[in-house]
Order: sequence, then structure tokens, then C-alpha cells
Amino acid sequence: MTVTAEMLRTYPQDLGGVDRDKLRACIEACYSCAQACTACADACLSESDVTGLAKCVRTDLDCADQCETTGRVLSRHTGYDANLTRSVLEACAQACKSCAEECERHASRHEHCRVCAEECRRCERACRDLLASL
Amino acid sequence: MTVTAEMLRTYPQDLGGVDRDKLRACIEACYSCAQACTACADACLSESDVTGLAKCVRTDLDCADQCETTGRVLSRHTGYDANLTRSVLEACAQACKSCAEECERHASRHEHCRVCAEECRRCERACRDLLASL
Amino acid sequence: MTVTAEMLRTYPQDLGGVDRDKLRACIEACYSCAQACTACADACLSESDVTGLAKCVRTDLDCADQCETTGRVLSRHTGYDANLTRSVLEACAQACKSCAEECERHASRHEHCRVCAEECRRCERACRDLLASL
Amino acid sequence: MTVTAEMLRTYPQDLGGVDRDKLRACIEACYSCAQACTACADACLSESDVTGLAKCVRTDLDCADQCETTGRVLSRHTGYDANLTRSVLEACAQACKSCAEECERHASRHEHCRVCAEECRRCERACRDLLASL
Repeated sequence: MTVTAEMLRTYPQDLGGVDRDKLRACIEACYSCAQACTACADACLSESDVTGLAKCVRTDLDCADQCETTGRVLSRHTGYDANLTRSVLEACAQACKSCAEECERHASRHEHCRVCAEECRRCERACRDLLASL
Repeated sequence: MTVTAEMLRTYPQDLGGVDRDKLRACIEACYSCAQACTACADACLSESDVTGLAKCVRTDLDCADQCETTGRVLSRHTGYDANLTRSVLEACAQACKSCAEECERHASRHEHCRVCAEECRRCERACRDLLASL
Repeated sequence: MTVTAEMLRTYPQDLGGVDRDKLRACIEACYSCAQACTACADACLSESDVTGLAKCVRTDLDCADQCETTGRVLSRHTGYDANLTRSVLEACAQACKSCAEECERHASRHEHCRVCAEECRRCERACRDLLASL
Repeated sequence: MTVTAEMLRTYPQDLGGVDRDKLRACIEACYSCAQACTACADACLSESDVTGLAKCVRTDLDCADQCETTGRVLSRHTGYDANLTRSVLEACAQACKSCAEECERHASRHEHCRVCAEECRRCERACRDLLASL
């Protein structure tokens, strides 16, 4: 059992009608995508063609920030606010989509962009799956 | 001139058609609201009726996180992505609205909730003003 | 292979003399501990004895913040600065130690505190192991 | 009165023996420096000589992260832990020093680096002043 699953299991109140598997998957995808985007931004900075990767660094940084915030919001269950959760998830799906599209443009030349794009697509799907289930 | 205004002034490229005053006001409101919400969550924890303030702590923490992410995204201008900026601003306006509504419920008893609610309303307005101008 | 390991493998430059396994373990521990602490703070807020858990919420929040910053700093390799990395790792080890000690006081009554304390101890060790290898 | 000062004034418990002016100055410097470093990293990305600024982007990002964490930790007063506060402040002073030194190398060519270096030095001093008073 992952730590995220353990923390969901030991929450002292009812989690409401949320789909626990989709919630866990989305929290884990947010933290994992945040790490990948932070690392990809830094890897881009070390490439010889960094000028052509400036937009990629930027979307990586935005995506890392929004994923961390979303992972935090989803880790909280007390005083659940559906409007807040929905809008944060929508922003995260959009940030992941924007970052995936940019990373995919460089994926054939830069393996870190390929790995990062896959993480972004996985996190985008996890956000949309959770949104659809709310 | 504030540091935020100085950093906008010294950005080496054109900022596009953005309304510079609304952008500066929104960045400053995001950072200021993030600080107020972090402090309000902690002040609530030190109140004798903390059980009744649990939802307030939670929305404070969510709002602080989304405001920081929004302040960061708005501080970047390279490779501007309108869809990403819009969705992040919408999430921030919603987080500020949710937090303001919760803080306002406790504003008559707890002055930190009153101050924080005002910051949240100011930041919500700054986000909506910037959104309307994009 | 984890995403963190993939991102380390695809970094386009040499990683210097760093112990790659200790680095990967520490990055993963930082992100995992950040999630656990965020969730534990929220779980404490939902307990009936939240007043007695106020200090636990606080150290959870501090630890989550420092772990995220440390996970980010360690995910970057470009322009390595040993002094900065060392001081960030020392702050993280201390934050994990403080949070573990507080969570351990509640571990017998609250399972989320027990799980979180274990994560904090694991992250503290990972930080000290990496520090010793630098 | 700034919002940070208002939040300190309305904290419901005693703040202990802390020097309130130094605390307020340090919190404000942390948030302000975090914004400047985030903006400077992005400004560097838009320069034509971005390859020579890669290390500057990196220290900017590290400094922004550590300053935000420090600003958050200092905004909390409940369950004060001197060891944790000290080590976080030391990491912040070091991050500001590293970033200032790097930005100063580019200050004559890039005004955003000059402004950012001044913010970093101001925040470094605020951290050391607060540390000396604890």
C-alpha cells in the first residue's frame, strides 16, 4: 500500500462519496508530475539549445506549481468545497495539457521531454477522471 | 516603485498587450493574500474554538497554495499561454471566494478572519479584473 | 524504474560525483513526506481533540513546505551549489525530526500520526544519508 | 499598516519574546524576494544569452522556493519550535546569498539581475537579523 493510500485509509472521518481509487491516483499523479516537471525544466537549462526550450522551461515551471497545489488540495478532506476542488482540478488539467503539448514538440530530441510529456498526459487524465466522478 | 513593478519594468521583452497595472496589482494581491491566509490558518489553530474553525483552516490553506501558484504563473511572461493563465486565474478567484465566505462567517468574533477575508476579496477582484482585461 | 529515476537517467549532463541512489531516494522521500504531512495536518483537523493537536498541525505544515522545497532543489542539477544544497538538506532533516517527534506523541491514538511519523523518520534518514555522501 | 503587520497584531496568543519588527520585516522580505527571484528566472529565460544565465535561473528558482517556505514558517506562531525556525532561516540566508552572488555577476548587463540581487541581499540581512535576535 502506498503512503497516499495509507493516509486516505487512516483519515478519521468519512471521505464522502468520492471514488477513493481515482482520488489516490490523482494525488499520486500530481506529486509525480510536479517532480518530473521540475526536473525537466532543469534538464532543459542544461541543453545546448536552451534558447529554443525557453517556453518548455516556462510551462514546466507553471505545471510543477499547479500540480503541487492540486496535490495539496486533494490531500485535504476536511470542510470539502466542491467548487474549489473542481476549479483547481480544471486548472491542473489545463496546465498538464499545455506542458504535455510543449514537451511533445521536443520529445524526439530530448528524452527528458518525452518522459515528462508522458507524466503530464497521465496527470491530465487523472484530473479529468476525478472531475468526471465528482 | 514596488519590487513587482521594478521586475515588470526590467523584463527584457515586450509584455504583449497585457494591462500592466492590473497585472502588477494581481501579482501583489496573490502574494499578500497567500501570506494572510497562511497566518489566518495558524491564528485559527490558536483559538479556543478551533473545532468550529476547522473548515476555515482548510480553506485558508487551499487559498494560500492557489494564490502562491497564481502569483508565480503571473510573474512569468516568457512563452505566454492564454489558456493556462485563464484557468489558473479562475481557480484563484474561486479559492479566494471560498475562503472569503468562510472567513466572513467568523469575522465578527476573530479579527484575523476579518483581515483575511478582506485580503481574499481584494485578491478575488484583482483576479477577475485581470481576467476581464485579457 | 520510477519517474524520478527516469528523470535522473535522462539528465543531459554529468551529475558530478553524487551518489545517484541516495539522491533518488531522498527526492522520493521528500515528495512522499510532503504528501503525508499535508494529509496528517488535515486529518488532525478532523479529530475531536484538535486543540491538543494544534502543534502537530503546525509542524506538519512546516515539514510539508520544507520537504517540497528540498525535493525541488534536489531535482535540479544545473549550476550545483554545495553550500545551498547542504543548508537546505539540514533544514529538511530538522523539520522532519521536529515533525516526527510531535507525531510520535500522538501515534498510539491516531494512526495517521503513526504513518506520518514513519514517513518523517524515513525522510530525515534520507536527508542525513545524502548529506553524509556529499 | 501592512497586511503582515495586521496579521501579527491580530494573532490571538502571545508571540513570545520575538522582536515583532524584525519578524515582520523578515516575512515581508521573504515574500518579496520569492516574487523577484521567480520573475528574474523568467526574465533570464527571455535573454539572448540564456545559456550563460542557466546557473542564474537555477539559483533564482531555489531561492524563490526556500524564501516561500521560510515566509510560511515565519507566518506561523502556534507551537513554536526554535530548532526548526533557526535551520529554516539559515537555509534561507544561504539561498539568498548564493542567488545574490550569481545575480551580481550579471547585474551590469541585466537590470532584472541587479534588482533581484538587491532583494536577495535585503532578505539575507533580514534573515540574519532575525536569527541574531532569537
